[in-house]
Amino acid sequence: MIDDNKELHPEIEYAEDVYSLSARRLSAILFALDRDDRDEMMVQMEPLHAADIADMLEQINPNDRRRLITLYGADFDGDILSELDEGLREEVIGVLHPSVLAGAVRDLESDDVVDLVEDLEGDAQEAILATLEDADRVAVEKSLAYPEFSAGRLMQSHVVKGPEHWLVGDAIDYMRRSDDLPEDFYHMVLVDPRMRAVGHVTLGKILGAPRDQKLTDILEPGFRTFSVEESESNVAYAFNQYHMISAPVVDEHERVVGVITIDDAMNVLDEEHEEDIMRLAGVGEGSLADKVIETVRARLPWLGVNLLTAILASMVIAQFEATISQFVALAVLMPIVASMGGNAGTQSLTVAVRAIATRDLTGANVWRVIRREVLVGLANGIVFAVIMGIVGVVWFGSPALGLVIATAMVINLVIAGLAGVGVPVLLEKVGVDPALASGAFVTTVTDIVGFFAFLGLAAVVLF
Amino acid sequence: MIDDNKELHPEIEYAEDVYSLSARRLSAILFALDRDDRDEMMVQMEPLHAADIADMLEQINPNDRRRLITLYGADFDGDILSELDEGLREEVIGVLHPSVLAGAVRDLESDDVVDLVEDLEGDAQEAILATLEDADRVAVEKSLAYPEFSAGRLMQSHVVKGPEHWLVGDAIDYMRRSDDLPEDFYHMVLVDPRMRAVGHVTLGKILGAPRDQKLTDILEPGFRTFSVEESESNVAYAFNQYHMISAPVVDEHERVVGVITIDDAMNVLDEEHEEDIMRLAGVGEGSLADKVIETVRARLPWLGVNLLTAILASMVIAQFEATISQFVALAVLMPIVASMGGNAGTQSLTVAVRAIATRDLTGANVWRVIRREVLVGLANGIVFAVIMGIVGVVWFGSPALGLVIATAMVINLVIAGLAGVGVPVLLEKVGVDPALASGAFVTTVTDIVGFFAFLGLAAVVLF
Repeated sequence: MIDDNKELHPEIEYAEDVYSLSARRLSAILFALDRDDRDEMMVQMEPLHAADIADMLEQINPNDRRRLITLYGADFDGDILSELDEGLREEVIGVLHPSVLAGAVRDLESDDVVDLVEDLEGDAQEAILATLEDADRVAVEKSLAYPEFSAGRLMQSHVVKGPEHWLVGDAIDYMRRSDDLPEDFYHMVLVDPRMRAVGHVTLGKILGAPRDQKLTDILEPGFRTFSVEESESNVAYAFNQYHMISAPVVDEHERVVGVITIDDAMNVLDEEHEEDIMRLAGVGEGSLADKVIETVRARLPWLGVNLLTAILASMVIAQFEATISQFVALAVLMPIVASMGGNAGTQSLTVAVRAIATRDLTGANVWRVIRREVLVGLANGIVFAVIMGIVGVVWFGSPALGLVIATAMVINLVIAGLAGVGVPVLLEKVGVDPALASGAFVTTVTDIVGFFAFLGLAAVVLF
Repeated sequence: MIDDNKELHPEIEYAEDVYSLSARRLSAILFALDRDDRDEMMVQMEPLHAADIADMLEQINPNDRRRLITLYGADFDGDILSELDEGLREEVIGVLHPSVLAGAVRDLESDDVVDLVEDLEGDAQEAILATLEDADRVAVEKSLAYPEFSAGRLMQSHVVKGPEHWLVGDAIDYMRRSDDLPEDFYHMVLVDPRMRAVGHVTLGKILGAPRDQKLTDILEPGFRTFSVEESESNVAYAFNQYHMISAPVVDEHERVVGVITIDDAMNVLDEEHEEDIMRLAGVGEGSLADKVIETVRARLPWLGVNLLTAILASMVIAQFEATISQFVALAVLMPIVASMGGNAGTQSLTVAVRAIATRDLTGANVWRVIRREVLVGLANGIVFAVIMGIVGVVWFGSPALGLVIATAMVINLVIAGLAGVGVPVLLEKVGVDPALASGAFVTTVTDIVGFFAFLGLAAVVLF
């Protein structure tokens, strides 16, 4: 059907070996749960990563969820909470025994605790903060003071750093003596006496160099830092664009206050993707575990916008009631022109929204891209004009009708190409997320142009 | 307009400090190019990462591109080729002087060379392979023998490994003596005498542990390997799901033959997302730099499918020509019902396609999700039924017409919820990528049901 069908998506072959939570395992766990067989349940859950257990909790019904958490008891890990869908966290925290919750949270890194508590209600947030030791709580509260979706929220406050004059041997000795190195770190950050970052060295380079080599001799090229105020989506973009593994975060005095690692950036990138795809489809934020009422509330506004634009299009049709009543074939064919325009517009729009997000569409090439989309619309328009002209003649025996629908098709597909790029570019210029609002504008344009061109031409040519 | 507008997308604030290729810098480079001022051009390009230079080459026109590459000369870096959009690589390779090309490719890691040459035509591929030293060429040719989009293609063949009985001190001494450690590596892989992976140790743990500690005592938990045959999208999924940084790739005898690092996995995740978003919009693979004819060819098939479904919907309307000719208001209002159904269906569909890709929608919760989407459709349907009922009465003064459009709206939104989840789930079951084909099916269903319900009810109720 579509020409690149040959390259069938590999991700639909659920490879059991990559994803540990197979359907069979899930059944076995639920079966053990039904018989209150904790030993069997633990055996089945043993190979599961915290992310798998979180997925499982999201997939089962609320009743099983509560029973499973209770039966699982003190083995409940803080990482499961971190991995859990935000919509479910409060429910799960409410079910956990306070002592289990305290044990679960205590082992998390500060960035994970921040991620965990930032969207919780006051009570649930307090319950978690109260379980932390003083130093950890201070670090978490400091992070929470930074704006939402900022590098300050994303970073981990525990940074492995050393003075810039150190040799490789100093770094190795320091790390070997240190008894609380972070779980995951990839660089030693070198700082000057005022704690400003001067560069960083990969652990690989430290291990590969002689002990008497100066660390400043083996600095990584392309060193970058992020301001605590930087948006997390810019951070994720930079990690992806520049193949970064970790980068220090600095405060307004350029002092190193934290570090962001690639796994966090990858997570943000994935969330940004989700947001883009959902916004393009007019779906607000939400998850599969949301209740009906939450989902209705998230989707109603977009459908409301669509209703307004559909009524606008209907008003265009209403101008031609007299024409339609004389020639009902027009009512039969008019949705085709609008539908083709809407689809062609969505194609151009999606390419443009994605290119804006990846910064491939800029002032330097915007006119070339618009020209291309218009030419593509013209070419596609001519192809489908010929086809629809023939359909018009064969179906309704009217060459004039064929001419009308063919002309309207060309006009609408050209406008679709123009609006498909123009609308998101303009929205971005005025500071509105193109993914959020472009769809409604573009289909409004193609509906109105489609109906107006088709019915208007018909009124002129056919009568 | 939309209720989550408050959280304006941060990525549209192009932060110059995160992305080095500013509009101003690009102008300065083009200005220098126009005056053949190589020195000034090099000064302006100095802070740019290879990824930025590739972006720049994609954004400027073909003529400037050729002149810039020629003026840039021997400084042209292999990483620029790797970062370049696939559609442009052959063009750029054709412009590069063979000696520059050889120099550019020589410094790349084997996985980058594979990525570079795998989609090139025979001649261009040969030109690059010929520049490699024998050992490197063998490694690249070995990778190319694995299936496209497999772990074997994605991996780097250079692995840092050691025997399982080693102590921390052995590992440090080995790495310090080694004079060709990979540019980026994060673990030492431990192998048994048959070269099978038994686990891996992070460099951080090696640096933090005493020299006489056994490496097997500080193995990372949750160690995973990938088969060379594993699909790259499964690999990317596992990296993201399990927060992996690097993982060995093993052949059919479980022997370690390569390693995949998170930056490659992040890249695949990004490409998968691009593919999903483009497929949902019916846009084949392609890039902004594609020519008009290539773009037309990529988009025509999908528009063709849409034309067929639009004609199907028109045939439904044609069944009611007599009804419409008696009451033209029906022609005015009918697109509203179809449009609302199409939008609601797209909402459900997008949520379902995304949930299937992230494996959140499985056999365990599919019925619960379908039930929820149907209930959401019912609730939204009732809201818009009331609104449209009132519009029908006010606009056309006909309570019967209001009742008809209200009822049709409820029916279509319920069907939209059902089809929106049902279609992608069924497509996935029969092995078709839901992102590729669901849209056409779902809007066909909502168009046909929308027109049929509205016009059919009108024929019964109004006459």
